[in-house]
Amino acid sequence: MKLGAIEAGGTKFICGIGDEDGKVLERVSIPTTTPDETIGQVLEFFRSKEISAMGIGSFGPVDLNKNSDTYGYITSTPKPHWAQYNLVGEIQKHIRVPVAFDTDVNAAAMGEMEWGAAKGLDSCIYMTVGTGIGVGAITEGKLLHGLTHPEMGHILVRRHPEDSFAGNCPYHKDCLEGMAAGPALEKRWGQKGIELADRPEVWELQAYYLAQALVNYILILSPKKMVIGGGVMKQEHLFPMVRQQVISQLNGYVQHSQLTEENIRNYIVPPGLGDNAGLCGALALAKTLKH
Amino acid sequence: MKLGAIEAGGTKFICGIGDEDGKVLERVSIPTTTPDETIGQVLEFFRSKEISAMGIGSFGPVDLNKNSDTYGYITSTPKPHWAQYNLVGEIQKHIRVPVAFDTDVNAAAMGEMEWGAAKGLDSCIYMTVGTGIGVGAITEGKLLHGLTHPEMGHILVRRHPEDSFAGNCPYHKDCLEGMAAGPALEKRWGQKGIELADRPEVWELQAYYLAQALVNYILILSPKKMVIGGGVMKQEHLFPMVRQQVISQLNGYVQHSQLTEENIRNYIVPPGLGDNAGLCGALALAKTLKH
Ligand SMILES: Nc1ncnc2c1ncn2[C@@H]1O[C@H](COP(=O)(O)OP(=O)(O)O)[C@@H](O)[C@H]1O
Ligand SMILES: Nc1ncnc2c1ncn2[C@@H]1O[C@H](COP(=O)(O)OP(=O)(O)O)[C@@H](O)[C@H]1O
Ligand SMILES: [Zn+2]
Ligand SMILES: [Zn+2]
Repeated sequence: MKLGAIEAGGTKFICGIGDEDGKVLERVSIPTTTPDETIGQVLEFFRSKEISAMGIGSFGPVDLNKNSDTYGYITSTPKPHWAQYNLVGEIQKHIRVPVAFDTDVNAAAMGEMEWGAAKGLDSCIYMTVGTGIGVGAITEGKLLHGLTHPEMGHILVRRHPEDSFAGNCPYHKDCLEGMAAGPALEKRWGQKGIELADRPEVWELQAYYLAQALVNYILILSPKKMVIGGGVMKQEHLFPMVRQQVISQLNGYVQHSQLTEENIRNYIVPPGLGDNAGLCGALALAKTLKH
Repeated sequence: MKLGAIEAGGTKFICGIGDEDGKVLERVSIPTTTPDETIGQVLEFFRSKEISAMGIGSFGPVDLNKNSDTYGYITSTPKPHWAQYNLVGEIQKHIRVPVAFDTDVNAAAMGEMEWGAAKGLDSCIYMTVGTGIGVGAITEGKLLHGLTHPEMGHILVRRHPEDSFAGNCPYHKDCLEGMAAGPALEKRWGQKGIELADRPEVWELQAYYLAQALVNYILILSPKKMVIGGGVMKQEHLFPMVRQQVISQLNGYVQHSQLTEENIRNYIVPPGLGDNAGLCGALALAKTLKH
């Protein structure tokens, strides 16, 4: 049985065909331009692919409330042409299969739980540190939703005493995303993240903010695994720094064998699915429709 | 069918008998001294009460992992005599009915969802601001657990620019509890909360910290209702101040009709069960055993 998957991002839509074991059989990347153009190409890709269900993980904010008139819409995005766009509706008008829809990061969390770093667990978070910071969560075996979907990338953080950068979130200035997403790094230091690789002070600060967020996620959600991906995390030396800071900021308050110097490297980890986390996540969403 | 309930607190154990509609038929308050003495009186109360199940909401930290050797224990509490105490085991040795066990605040969240301010919803948080700050959460219809139980009272907060109080959490100094629980208020201002009622600067600061925590809970958990109780919240004028601060700190980022000037008073609310939230919560836990 073939499943369809779309990882709908602000720069590109990755579309794929896969199976119920998370194996990607075919994939294509389509630039995100206008809805007409992009979705036209997406539909073209899926034409005559004979899929039985579709999963979509999308950039947001999105409306996930099934009782809402705008369920399946991308809602208030600043991205030109895409605000109030009926993504699920447009897809389903042309591809007549059941569609499961969630945020890109919730999808990735599902993928990591089905086939990746959180396999076999009933709780985890998936965080991406890229152009923005987004986090998806599974608690008690289910994707976490509530009033809306979580927006954990915007939590308020305390600033590092030596950091005078104002922050660049248009809503909160110095929230987590405003201080630690890729564009914040670039604005604070005047160079792209990849060019800052050998400046320890950059990553010291970065680890401080990311760890602070993880500490709050631990205290609030108590996830069984924390998976962190996205462009900025390609700086692999960040992982040990973040882990160290998490331990020091928690200061022994939460006692668990995972939160020790020896074991934390198995608790805060890169995606088991690598750059396929998003697409496999959409596959995992599609798979939920078959039960 | 009668149910037993225990709200096990650091100062007192409240024991009660109730029914499946959350009606408390009988209750008694027993001082928390030594386990022998306190639990002796608890057992005395329940003797010959013919209950069919028991719910216990306890101060913590507690071990809630059913696969653990110390399931049902109060674990690393600084409270003399109670660390590593097998609470559920001792009760069950003498009262031979099924026991449901959780944190005091998780129990209260259950009670508020069954019969209180969050009735009919599948997600809420219950926060107490008293001697400590504790929060219980229900997400997607289930009590939130993970690696351990959440410890949201200790999240890291940014300090108010005019606040020079060092904070009094033994683990983190200026975490939320260290800045905003009853004892922090008393230490910062030199008087008990109740005596500070007419000093606006006290509550300005207090609202700032509580709102900051609520903003992060909204961004991370997206609860459908936030119920706040505990001694400090007896200062009822705090509610409008906290609501106002939540709106201003979120700054329009999460768009939902509940998060507007008109509706937020129905979103951030005192316990529907008043001072019975804890005991009714334990009843609600007991009730879960009957399905
Ligand atoms: N190797 C790298 N080291 C540090 N930063 C990087 C690296 N690669 C990409 N980035 C930064 O990550 C951001 C892009 O994140 P990415 O996850 O690739 O895309 P998106 O978030 O748009 O899906 C940019 O700000 C970029 O500068
Ligand atoms: N009316 C009040 N106004 C302000 N603070 C209060 C009031 N009543 C109690 N407190 C404070 O609340 C704390 C006790 O909280 P409470 O919820 O009653 O007990 P506990 O948290 O121990 O169960 C104390 O620090 C006390 O000073
Ligand atoms: Zn922000
Ligand atoms: Zn603390």
